[in-house]
Amino acid sequence: MRMYDIIDKKKRGNELTKEEINFVIHGYVAEEIPDYQIAALLMAIYFQGMTEEELLYLTNSMAVSGDLVDLSDINGIKVDKHSTGGVGDKTTLVVAPLVAACGGKVAKMSGRGLGFTGGTVDKLESIPGFQTAIAEEEFFHTVNEIGLSVIGQSANIAPADKKLYALRDVTATVDSIPLIAASIMSKKLAAGSDKIVLDVTVGSGAFMKTKEDAVALAEKMVAIGEGAGKETIALLTNMDVPLGISVGNNVEIVEAVNTLKGKGPKDFQEICEIFAIHMLVLGGIGDFAACKQKVMQAIADGTALEKFAQMVRWQGGDNTYIYHPEKLEKAKYKTDLLAGKSGYIYHMDTELCGRAAVLLGAGRETKDSGIDSTAGICFYKKTGAQVKKGELLATLYSSSREKLKEALAYLEKGYVFDDKEPPVWNSVIAKVTKDGVEDLY
Amino acid sequence: MRMYDIIDKKKRGNELTKEEINFVIHGYVAEEIPDYQIAALLMAIYFQGMTEEELLYLTNSMAVSGDLVDLSDINGIKVDKHSTGGVGDKTTLVVAPLVAACGGKVAKMSGRGLGFTGGTVDKLESIPGFQTAIAEEEFFHTVNEIGLSVIGQSANIAPADKKLYALRDVTATVDSIPLIAASIMSKKLAAGSDKIVLDVTVGSGAFMKTKEDAVALAEKMVAIGEGAGKETIALLTNMDVPLGISVGNNVEIVEAVNTLKGKGPKDFQEICEIFAIHMLVLGGIGDFAACKQKVMQAIADGTALEKFAQMVRWQGGDNTYIYHPEKLEKAKYKTDLLAGKSGYIYHMDTELCGRAAVLLGAGRETKDSGIDSTAGICFYKKTGAQVKKGELLATLYSSSREKLKEALAYLEKGYVFDDKEPPVWNSVIAKVTKDGVEDLY
Repeated sequence: MRMYDIIDKKKRGNELTKEEINFVIHGYVAEEIPDYQIAALLMAIYFQGMTEEELLYLTNSMAVSGDLVDLSDINGIKVDKHSTGGVGDKTTLVVAPLVAACGGKVAKMSGRGLGFTGGTVDKLESIPGFQTAIAEEEFFHTVNEIGLSVIGQSANIAPADKKLYALRDVTATVDSIPLIAASIMSKKLAAGSDKIVLDVTVGSGAFMKTKEDAVALAEKMVAIGEGAGKETIALLTNMDVPLGISVGNNVEIVEAVNTLKGKGPKDFQEICEIFAIHMLVLGGIGDFAACKQKVMQAIADGTALEKFAQMVRWQGGDNTYIYHPEKLEKAKYKTDLLAGKSGYIYHMDTELCGRAAVLLGAGRETKDSGIDSTAGICFYKKTGAQVKKGELLATLYSSSREKLKEALAYLEKGYVFDDKEPPVWNSVIAKVTKDGVEDLY
Repeated sequence: MRMYDIIDKKKRGNELTKEEINFVIHGYVAEEIPDYQIAALLMAIYFQGMTEEELLYLTNSMAVSGDLVDLSDINGIKVDKHSTGGVGDKTTLVVAPLVAACGGKVAKMSGRGLGFTGGTVDKLESIPGFQTAIAEEEFFHTVNEIGLSVIGQSANIAPADKKLYALRDVTATVDSIPLIAASIMSKKLAAGSDKIVLDVTVGSGAFMKTKEDAVALAEKMVAIGEGAGKETIALLTNMDVPLGISVGNNVEIVEAVNTLKGKGPKDFQEICEIFAIHMLVLGGIGDFAACKQKVMQAIADGTALEKFAQMVRWQGGDNTYIYHPEKLEKAKYKTDLLAGKSGYIYHMDTELCGRAAVLLGAGRETKDSGIDSTAGICFYKKTGAQVKKGELLATLYSSSREKLKEALAYLEKGYVFDDKEPPVWNSVIAKVTKDGVEDLY
């Protein structure tokens, strides 16, 4: 088997075999195939796509390139959740405790933020004392005892994906839907859960800018999951505006706590409840109606919030911050963004909003950057709102007065005003299962 | 400027600027841009193509990456000729002396053969004593004194092309028409002639298998040449059968000598005359009719053959071999290929015929292989011929009895027989100039 022939075959639009795909991934991880041949293949895949079979072979091959987590020591059906990322996306912080409070099992490995998307691990670490680097045995024990644990992803999950992603990142081949699907799903398959619920974000603050692309990605990921024998569903969610009100680390913890109490922003509250219900249904806890009732009950009676506080304590954190999130450190400086004109907010460039938060210190510019957990933005008016000139749109927080000024000027460019009311998407747009796409809610 | 952005731009089908293209070529030759980024760009170019402007920038940038030959010490208009290669393609051996005999100037740098295509330098070196590694000053002097010289290409012509070609060769990006055009024309621009006549071969023994691809390549090369201020024309020639009768080194010298005497195989004789006429017209020697008369005269009165013999002597060769080519060493072994059935030869896989000659020892398997100058094939019946079962199709020559057996079995597979007469292409199919494509002859 020669790498040249494999590149040529894909370039001509022909289907690669399982053996050819394994040859590529194994050879690349073993450093027997050079970067330049893989780069050419990735670009050919960008143009020619991959069939469902090829994609399943690729994803499996990437998944088995490293450790396969064995969750069988945890009782019950383990349902994983994954989001394709966005701005203000703190969903896991709410959904994990909510599901656990209703009897589900959540053994979740999360990532750090990079670029304009935040990471769950960074957000949790803004709670004083909270540990995310936890040994497997303790992780399993915690999930068995209290129903959930959220930890950082171990180093050796799908190393083929790490190597491929690093190469895609410098060869302009990140934005290939099959390659994105394989990247995400290889880690999900390796993470060992029984079933998977995917949050495919769509809009100006997501990697998928259009509903068509988001549906295509969701369909590919669902096909991979199902092909690997794990029931998988995807919900398309609106990332054409920042999710909820808060973007940043401490501010998102506050918002998560409010949402666990049922007092979250409407869009975020709805998304969290829908995800929790679907995870519980997949986990065999009950049908949709029964699970919905459990979720609403857990919010109303405080058990959801208690579950969050319990996880924080079990993972070394100070859970008084959960009951009194106002104790979290405040930013040294803040400034307000006011409406420059009257009218409707017609569009928000949500990726730009995320980048503004990074400028403030809330996210990482590069892998090795530090994070300012007090930095962030609260958005009081979002797309669709009618505002008067001078009305408060958002407040920016930072430890640096200079960054505040820079981010304010930058954020201003993210808004488009108009006299007419814009169409506004639902929070949850569609559901994708192996049976097809269902427009929703 | 970032290489990432340049890859991404091309991937999306946008036009690169002159500055961006210079950045790529300069950075690659300087080893500041890694192979994997260039590989991704090459594959993106394979899919997105290049505009006429981009291609001119690319070719110029590649041409100036090394030495630019200055032919101004040679008097008169220098017309270069280049063939895209084929099987039995000994055209330069005949055309160069023919043009010089008619008053044209031919300062030609040629290459060696690789794979199924032969190289002029190898063929000339099969004449005992002939030198192709000649200093520039002596090269100029020879052309000024006798009207022609054919030498090996110097080491530092378009090094960017060498580097790019080596990478294309391992990343399945050789067969991109714009990249082929840039590769050939970068060397032609650096070689310093005033005008260029291109022989674009087409068919089963050429890199361009279809007329459409050959026209596309010819158009791109003509546009580059004209864009660089050098009048350029291209003739499409039939490489769907081996050119002439002989494939190999000594046997092709014999055929060239016969053709210079007007006794060459019909197709090869015609191609040589047409190319010589066009080179003379471009060289300002006269109009088409006048140049045609000169060419026919030089063949008839023996001055064309004498010119060849003169060049051989000036370049250190023993020119008695030109007057008595039967003196050239004969192969130790030979064998005949006989028709396996009666009917028309409907198709010949000419690339396979070339590979059979390589198997016999006539060409190089790799850059460092040696050559058996006695090895080769003479084709007595070609596509379109009606043959009887057992009739002689070809004779194979080699120094190795084993290779002979292997090549015979291989060559047999190159013939397709049928009851009906196949369509047969003209020797010269079309002419491509800046004014368009003209079907010809």
